[in-house]
Amino acid sequence: MSAFDELMAHDRVTQALASVAGRTGWDQETVMPEGAAELRAEEMGALEEVLHARRTDPRIGDWLEKAEAGDGVGEAKLRHIRRSYRRNTKVPEDLAVAIARQTSRGQGIWAKARAEDDFEHFTPTLSEMVSLKREEAAALADGGDLYDALLDDYEPGMKGAELQALFDRMRPRLVALREKVLGAKIAAPLDRAFDEAGQLALSTQLAEVFGYDLSRGRIDKAVHPFSSGSGTDVRITTRVAPRDPFNCFYSTIHEVGHACYEQGIDAEYALTPLGSGVSMGVHESQSRIYENQLGRSRAFTGWLYAKMRDQFGDFGVTDEEAFYAIVNRVQSGFIRTEADEVHYNLHVMLRFDLERQLIAGTLEVRDLEEVWNTRFAQDFGVAVDKASNGVLQDVHWSFGLFGYFPTYSLGNVYAGCLHQALRAAVPDLDTQLAAGDTQAATDWLRENLQRHGGLYEPRDVIARACGGKTPDESPLLAYLEEKFGALYGV
Amino acid sequence: MSAFDELMAHDRVTQALASVAGRTGWDQETVMPEGAAELRAEEMGALEEVLHARRTDPRIGDWLEKAEAGDGVGEAKLRHIRRSYRRNTKVPEDLAVAIARQTSRGQGIWAKARAEDDFEHFTPTLSEMVSLKREEAAALADGGDLYDALLDDYEPGMKGAELQALFDRMRPRLVALREKVLGAKIAAPLDRAFDEAGQLALSTQLAEVFGYDLSRGRIDKAVHPFSSGSGTDVRITTRVAPRDPFNCFYSTIHEVGHACYEQGIDAEYALTPLGSGVSMGVHESQSRIYENQLGRSRAFTGWLYAKMRDQFGDFGVTDEEAFYAIVNRVQSGFIRTEADEVHYNLHVMLRFDLERQLIAGTLEVRDLEEVWNTRFAQDFGVAVDKASNGVLQDVHWSFGLFGYFPTYSLGNVYAGCLHQALRAAVPDLDTQLAAGDTQAATDWLRENLQRHGGLYEPRDVIARACGGKTPDESPLLAYLEEKFGALYGV
Repeated sequence: MSAFDELMAHDRVTQALASVAGRTGWDQETVMPEGAAELRAEEMGALEEVLHARRTDPRIGDWLEKAEAGDGVGEAKLRHIRRSYRRNTKVPEDLAVAIARQTSRGQGIWAKARAEDDFEHFTPTLSEMVSLKREEAAALADGGDLYDALLDDYEPGMKGAELQALFDRMRPRLVALREKVLGAKIAAPLDRAFDEAGQLALSTQLAEVFGYDLSRGRIDKAVHPFSSGSGTDVRITTRVAPRDPFNCFYSTIHEVGHACYEQGIDAEYALTPLGSGVSMGVHESQSRIYENQLGRSRAFTGWLYAKMRDQFGDFGVTDEEAFYAIVNRVQSGFIRTEADEVHYNLHVMLRFDLERQLIAGTLEVRDLEEVWNTRFAQDFGVAVDKASNGVLQDVHWSFGLFGYFPTYSLGNVYAGCLHQALRAAVPDLDTQLAAGDTQAATDWLRENLQRHGGLYEPRDVIARACGGKTPDESPLLAYLEEKFGALYGV
Repeated sequence: MSAFDELMAHDRVTQALASVAGRTGWDQETVMPEGAAELRAEEMGALEEVLHARRTDPRIGDWLEKAEAGDGVGEAKLRHIRRSYRRNTKVPEDLAVAIARQTSRGQGIWAKARAEDDFEHFTPTLSEMVSLKREEAAALADGGDLYDALLDDYEPGMKGAELQALFDRMRPRLVALREKVLGAKIAAPLDRAFDEAGQLALSTQLAEVFGYDLSRGRIDKAVHPFSSGSGTDVRITTRVAPRDPFNCFYSTIHEVGHACYEQGIDAEYALTPLGSGVSMGVHESQSRIYENQLGRSRAFTGWLYAKMRDQFGDFGVTDEEAFYAIVNRVQSGFIRTEADEVHYNLHVMLRFDLERQLIAGTLEVRDLEEVWNTRFAQDFGVAVDKASNGVLQDVHWSFGLFGYFPTYSLGNVYAGCLHQALRAAVPDLDTQLAAGDTQAATDWLRENLQRHGGLYEPRDVIARACGGKTPDESPLLAYLEEKFGALYGV
């Protein structure tokens, strides 16, 4: 066997084991008996030990030196393995273990602090985590920017300074839009209960309408909706809130976007480094375009309105226009995950700025809550009332996920670009969506983006789908201003 | 760390990975999307590769040489690891791979042959499997008996000749009993449909009545009921046949017996070699005593009769006595898994004799169907009508599981012994069972057998539970003759 083939054979087994680890995580969130938590922690630890040993196997270094790719696909595979090997060997094992331990300890402490609205209770833990992640970043950064080194885990090739510039361009227009919209009359929310069986039935129908292949997936309930797995086994979860069926429906469509990306990747890439989504930002572009640009469009909500009336009878909304306004109601709120399209990116930018300062060492954890609250008041016009509505709301930092938040907004920006290109490619898209037909849209996304998996770098794959145009924020902002301007007459 | 501690730390990670592999098998049979079969095969292969490498790690040999156990628990742990290490290192890796490959190939061919009632289609595959297993047995046997070497995998310490003697004593009395019973008037089976939701609800209630802890387990549906996992995550499956609710109820109780054994093991043994059931025979003793001696007793069926009337209304059975007769109806049949208590062991003995001859080389696969049919006619008094009702009915041989079948009957024999001791220890057991109360029985089994896990050798742990008496067939035969003699007035 050639060095290239030996490397790929080794990596394939690692990929298969990582797939098992991912599904073990799915099991934990969906079907695991409550009493099995401790056992599960040991199982995950054992899998991590095996995966880490395989990913730092010194033979990988030898193979990488000798391997000849042969073609572009081979080169892309080597690029991913080289990046992963470099990352895994640069971080000293004791540091990796310390971070894993702190992650596992930190969550419980964060959960307790959040439940008690007591940020101080979380301060020492978060300080320790920031310190460990700074150490990790230094090991990875080769003297370069610390935050960039962490960001690279989620969005390869992206830099903090570029995001800063992007967000600086977006923020004033978003703040202006929210102010205009909030001055208008906002639709009242739904005001009745919708039975769980009906929500789940319609949710499954939505998944299928958006092209989710249930012969290679399944839908379960979980506390926090997520998508998990690649290729022929991509599972999603959803949740049910009796008085808020949109939570269920749009969580499902969002996760279906992630899942269709994974299901849409060229089958030949299965169990290779190209067999899963290329970055968090690109992944989020799929979940967002399915959920928002398609799922919350005037055309598609017209179809959904009829479906909801079929399922639940008259639920007190008079027509499609009123329904569209409710689906897209804008309101100031504390919680990122409940934010509408206008507010969402403002929540992310706040987090991005603060975590970048934490990693740079220019902001101390002990000052974090105050800085958060000041910034929130500035962007959202309201004072944070308690830590669980502010600095303690998200789990990410307790997991050590610094550099993750901005990929959510990057996903929105990419979704804006893809949506513009899609509209040009499928001129009668609204007619189709109004009939509950997403086929042309999802086919276009599969053909132009999803099937490539990890073949191209994140920004390249978006640019290719958009006729070579380097992605930027203008399509997203134009879309938001037009949509919400029209909806609220502002 | 001492050699003992290092060995245990290494083994603990292996146990945790094996636990993941087991649950991946559970996933495959219960919730896996149909399209994921190929991916799953690669995942299982990757896990096996890792497990095999860990189990044959040469450091284990070094540690075993130096390890000092300290106490009986430590010695038992070393005994298990020594046996596993010896087994795994004695079989050459290319042979192990060939068997794994043949196992995976063989099943599809067996399934097709069975569907088409065409044994000849399966002959070459089975011949190859027998040949590979003979080779494996030779590698393990050190010049000793080939069948014994395979049997040791499922029932450590047991010998084919001992089983032969045991079965030779049992067979005439069982044949005599079946002839007497079949001359009597047999109750007609149930003759209506029972809704699935009702069957599953009562099935869950039965699981709880028999002490299954759902906070450390769960119940799902699967084509073939099974139990899976150890310690704090022990899952069972059941199935529903609309016109045969006993299939669901007694499958559940059977699997609950297996599961309670695993859940009942001392928590300190979790993720050690002592943390799971000690042998197939002892495992089966638990499933059988729960299902038969307890679950099909006159006392308990009285309680179940009332529960079924609560759940399904009047279902055409007039009283408890009639119900008891239906639950315990005896009839000649081709299929082992559908056999009653009187016939079951005769099915096993047939398989034991034939597989022992196959492994000894005194029976050729090409003659197997004829020999099976002749023997079946002799023991059961009817001619096999098609291969799927005869030699092709069980999956075991296509999996290479030679030496597994006799453990089913050994389980029955052990259950007979345990039942005798239990009756002596809990004199008012029937009063309790009649009230749907199995607590004293399951507590006794947990205290006297289940909690020990792998601490004692299989026969020792049964003997200990039975006041030191070496287990034999007499309690089982006495129980069967008394029960069915009384039921049929013979």
